[in-house]
Amino acid sequence: MPAPEIRETRLPGGLRVLTDPMETVETVSVGVWADVGARHEPAPLNGVCHMLEHMAFKGTRRRSALDIAVEMEDVGGQMNAYTSREHTAFFAKMLKDDLPLAVDILADILQHSVFDPEELARERGVVVQEIAQSIDTPDDIIFDHFQATAFGNQPLGRPVLGTMETVERLDSDAVGGFQRAHYSPDRLVVTAAGRVDHDALVDMVAGQFTALNANPPAKGETARYTGGEYRETRDVEQAHIVLGFDGVAYDDPDYYAAAVLATLFGGGMSSRLFQEIREKRGLAYTVSAFANSYVDGGLFTLYAGTGPEDVAALTPVLCEEIAKVRTRVSPDEVARARAQLRAGILMGQESTSGRCEQLARQILVFGRPISNAEVLAAVEAVDEATVVRVANRIFATAPTLAVLGAIDGMEPLEQMRTRF
Amino acid sequence: MPAPEIRETRLPGGLRVLTDPMETVETVSVGVWADVGARHEPAPLNGVCHMLEHMAFKGTRRRSALDIAVEMEDVGGQMNAYTSREHTAFFAKMLKDDLPLAVDILADILQHSVFDPEELARERGVVVQEIAQSIDTPDDIIFDHFQATAFGNQPLGRPVLGTMETVERLDSDAVGGFQRAHYSPDRLVVTAAGRVDHDALVDMVAGQFTALNANPPAKGETARYTGGEYRETRDVEQAHIVLGFDGVAYDDPDYYAAAVLATLFGGGMSSRLFQEIREKRGLAYTVSAFANSYVDGGLFTLYAGTGPEDVAALTPVLCEEIAKVRTRVSPDEVARARAQLRAGILMGQESTSGRCEQLARQILVFGRPISNAEVLAAVEAVDEATVVRVANRIFATAPTLAVLGAIDGMEPLEQMRTRF
Repeated sequence: MPAPEIRETRLPGGLRVLTDPMETVETVSVGVWADVGARHEPAPLNGVCHMLEHMAFKGTRRRSALDIAVEMEDVGGQMNAYTSREHTAFFAKMLKDDLPLAVDILADILQHSVFDPEELARERGVVVQEIAQSIDTPDDIIFDHFQATAFGNQPLGRPVLGTMETVERLDSDAVGGFQRAHYSPDRLVVTAAGRVDHDALVDMVAGQFTALNANPPAKGETARYTGGEYRETRDVEQAHIVLGFDGVAYDDPDYYAAAVLATLFGGGMSSRLFQEIREKRGLAYTVSAFANSYVDGGLFTLYAGTGPEDVAALTPVLCEEIAKVRTRVSPDEVARARAQLRAGILMGQESTSGRCEQLARQILVFGRPISNAEVLAAVEAVDEATVVRVANRIFATAPTLAVLGAIDGMEPLEQMRTRF
Repeated sequence: MPAPEIRETRLPGGLRVLTDPMETVETVSVGVWADVGARHEPAPLNGVCHMLEHMAFKGTRRRSALDIAVEMEDVGGQMNAYTSREHTAFFAKMLKDDLPLAVDILADILQHSVFDPEELARERGVVVQEIAQSIDTPDDIIFDHFQATAFGNQPLGRPVLGTMETVERLDSDAVGGFQRAHYSPDRLVVTAAGRVDHDALVDMVAGQFTALNANPPAKGETARYTGGEYRETRDVEQAHIVLGFDGVAYDDPDYYAAAVLATLFGGGMSSRLFQEIREKRGLAYTVSAFANSYVDGGLFTLYAGTGPEDVAALTPVLCEEIAKVRTRVSPDEVARARAQLRAGILMGQESTSGRCEQLARQILVFGRPISNAEVLAAVEAVDEATVVRVANRIFATAPTLAVLGAIDGMEPLEQMRTRF
């Protein structure tokens, strides 16, 4: 019996519906992913996407906030949402028979939310608390400062949550208007993975998503990486250090090579940074490298958290490792990184929520599902020469340094730059 | 075709091996769970279990730390570990053909680690960084203070990581001696879930786990919940409030009723605390309730994070909700909580790592696998009267209050107690 296949239907208005069936599970994950995120916000409305995500759960024409919560949890389903710099997602996981209810609720909250001013006033308070919690968590807020420094005053540099100031100014018109302007059918995709019948889902979606506004496509500002430096001394136990570089976009030919580089450089226990900084020298509990991509750019990021007594010793080691990886990588470590990525891809196939999200991201970014075979072949094609070339491409760009905490004694960025 | 069944084999030395086969996946999760945790530590050795967990990856007689990391990641496998107050776990997930390698490495690191003094000195530095990171994260460290307050100066009140002082004093003899004294075959269980053959795994384990010391069973101190109050003013954006009560042990007849209570009181978007504190009043971003169990006791815990301007208003609402749930719960909300727990149990069945861990916990706590049918029946049997009775049992115990952050203006515990 051949494995069931991913199917795609584009509805007349442009809304895409995709299913990834898994016949051995009893549950289904379904979600709506919007090609709308913090980078699509005008500066005074920074945080509006995230507020919209919150307000979607605060009442529609026919459901109160309590109804929305109760109806899904009555059947043991879980509904959740998140906002990123490029996307907003609303998704649910439930037993297979409850899929129609989930689609009904998703369609309702995305088309008929009322954005009641009193509810919004309360929700501003909730989001301000969420921002406060982020500020209080050094290894969370440091990445907002890093992003702002890497992209200067551009939309891609702004925080997803907005700021306390911008959030306090968001009113119902701003939130509702933003939704009407951006939630066009052609910028949304509905995906489901698990125990799901494609045609049945298409019928549900076609019957429910009838009130979306068609709009001209958003003209986003192309991201322009700048680099720079941010330093904040804070009276805490640790110093948090984020050193980043201009990375690769999703559709960059070096996308998979950057993933291999991040894995062998700081992606696991056998990685160079983990071995050199944590295992050999004991300079940090957390040290890692990762590659983030956007539609038009990316960031390649190194992170370490360390104590005040080690902060002076850490950055020279970090920078020497950068210099080393620009000169040589071994066949063994490239093969190992490929194996890690390959296994991660296969393991990701075992969860309905993982497959549902992966499919949606592929549609939003590439406009088509990407088969595992295609991804695995691309990973397999990355060799040592490519990794070294991409390391040189990335680490030759202007660095972005964001540091926060007990940072006295840390060398300046100019000195770090002399080391790689 | 009947679903493949859980199988158990007890090896001659007392080591138990269990498998939960899943025929539709390509991977397997395997792990060793030890009935050894922070509560088994003598006070001067607080943190030794966690240090042992770290040092297990730092070299054996035939493998360096690098070898351990490299061998597993060479095949794309992921190995990890954690320590809790009652258990220590070492586990891995890999493609099915790589199971023998994982068992080989697990057996090696748990029986033949060398605890090299130089490696240990470096690892003390790493753990001190981990402690510092925890101290810097208010909504992390507050739970250590809460636990210490709930259980006074008893072993169950101590932090899993230890303190900077106790960790700095741990030497090779202490770590190695603790392992020899506690890692007896009868206190360990090996479980695997996913694409695994039971007899093949039993052969691997029997062939590899041949060097464990048999020891008399540990005589643990029975936990005695005390309650109390901890206050720490810190110059941060939020106040973190943990209010807890004497809870239920794993084998308590009220175990499932406590789970239903936690779910309807603060377990999801439809829960009372979420609705009243976040949705209706906007007083917090995070508010929740949860029930934690130990072999001889438990904690029932409420948590909220809020801003300095709302901290005075929050605790009265929290306490009024306690008073209300002691008088009445509706059939609807009990049914909904049961549905949430039921769906959570079924959804947990879809991941190899989740099933592997669940099976191990059941063996360590109950000495036998508990079928889904048994758990679901126990959940189903919880009715409104039971929930109200258990709410009264729990909320009549001496409260434990731990608060940290911007807490000026918060009412004292004595005043809170008058409200429920």
